[in-house]
Amino acid sequence: MSGVLEASPRLGLVSLVGAGPGDPELLTLRAAKRLAEADLVLYDALVQVATLDLAPRAQRFSVGKRAGRPSTRQEAIHALMIRAARRGRRVVRLKCGDPFVFGRGGEEALALLAAGIPFEVVPGLSSALAAPAALGVPLTHRGLASSFLVVSGHAEAAWRPVVDALPPGATTLVLLMGLGARSEIAGRLLELGWRRSTPAAISLAAATPAERSWFGELSDLAGAAPPLEVDGLPGVIVIGEVVGVAEALREQAPGFLQSAATRA
Amino acid sequence: MSGVLEASPRLGLVSLVGAGPGDPELLTLRAAKRLAEADLVLYDALVQVATLDLAPRAQRFSVGKRAGRPSTRQEAIHALMIRAARRGRRVVRLKCGDPFVFGRGGEEALALLAAGIPFEVVPGLSSALAAPAALGVPLTHRGLASSFLVVSGHAEAAWRPVVDALPPGATTLVLLMGLGARSEIAGRLLELGWRRSTPAAISLAAATPAERSWFGELSDLAGAAPPLEVDGLPGVIVIGEVVGVAEALREQAPGFLQSAATRA
Repeated sequence: MSGVLEASPRLGLVSLVGAGPGDPELLTLRAAKRLAEADLVLYDALVQVATLDLAPRAQRFSVGKRAGRPSTRQEAIHALMIRAARRGRRVVRLKCGDPFVFGRGGEEALALLAAGIPFEVVPGLSSALAAPAALGVPLTHRGLASSFLVVSGHAEAAWRPVVDALPPGATTLVLLMGLGARSEIAGRLLELGWRRSTPAAISLAAATPAERSWFGELSDLAGAAPPLEVDGLPGVIVIGEVVGVAEALREQAPGFLQSAATRA
Repeated sequence: MSGVLEASPRLGLVSLVGAGPGDPELLTLRAAKRLAEADLVLYDALVQVATLDLAPRAQRFSVGKRAGRPSTRQEAIHALMIRAARRGRRVVRLKCGDPFVFGRGGEEALALLAAGIPFEVVPGLSSALAAPAALGVPLTHRGLASSFLVVSGHAEAAWRPVVDALPPGATTLVLLMGLGARSEIAGRLLELGWRRSTPAAISLAAATPAERSWFGELSDLAGAAPPLEVDGLPGVIVIGEVVGVAEALREQAPGFLQSAATRA
């Protein structure tokens, strides 16, 4: 069947696929199927090798963005996808997390649309939700939180207008790309009246072999000393009373989350 | 191997598993594995039959909550899980979406912990993210939104303090359990200064055979006439400029999302 498709003059298909937070077992069944059938995989730098192993017959190229490292320009990624699809190839554009959450999936979809290339979006577990889950943090919990805000900490112009407006403690706060600005953001929250003892946690490299975590209070995050070495790993910060649920779970059943992450 | 486990005096395992938005292909690989090995599946009312078919050897019981219908009390669900695990059974507590997003996963985890039952959390695609994705809506998009707020519209006391505080248009708004209150919430946003023409969309029964959607403007949502019959289906409302990206995708490539949902 693949021979027929390759010999066909018809356009290929580009699948914008979310790889989830790291662990290959946290891909969706559809994502695994697309990888198994792919001719070409264009993957983000932080995608795990074990995930790429799900695409044994594909050519694989890293086009990843990673803080401080050279990366393929967005336009070049578009051109690679379009050229391969025009040759009838099945292309997987494999993104960490979910393509539509800080993944530029919308931009890539619009570029494919403009080029007349058939495409689809295969959602993945966003680290905004999966990293707190790996820590044992429910983003909502009866009596503690019935909403959560996911915000990029990459640029102050992005987080400040929303964060400044929130009533202190009114919602669970999930910061992506916020490790570098954690002191600044935590300090701002304290200025805004958030309790110093608000529980906070950091997940580093969730659902990967390098996974590490930190639990503490908002005032610790704001302190000068960083609570852990971040080594350029992807990190998610969660702030809110729901973090206390995870602390209860971890104190009393320290093994449960590790076993969940590694049990085959 | 299952005979050995069943004969063992050891405790079983309870897996709190997210079933994702509906389509069985959107389960994670780990979720599918747990279902395949399960002795007992306790599932929410809205879980699809095709998903339950992934657990061929399990006893299956609906313990689902659904608006306006009788449901098993939360304490009874805890008791069922605990009793089965004490008999050494592998239990899957199968929840729509993600266990930790409006799924009472935290409560169930704490109950299992208190009873000394081994458990794990297997995350799923939350409909808060997967339903917008099925519509073609990226929750973030460069130049349009760098944050999103997920909030329950079930009770005014829950959404009002957060929604009232947001600067108009400052973030993408995702309302779960908000169909019944959509006029009230949209009206409140207009009072707060959100533009009447802010793009808005509703996803009903995303990623299921009954999937339907509506696209319009915030002022339509606030109108007296409901934009569509909801029939007790689960629905997600998205409000924000990012909805315009989906409108562009759907106008120019109306088939792509359907094909994504049904392509095998």
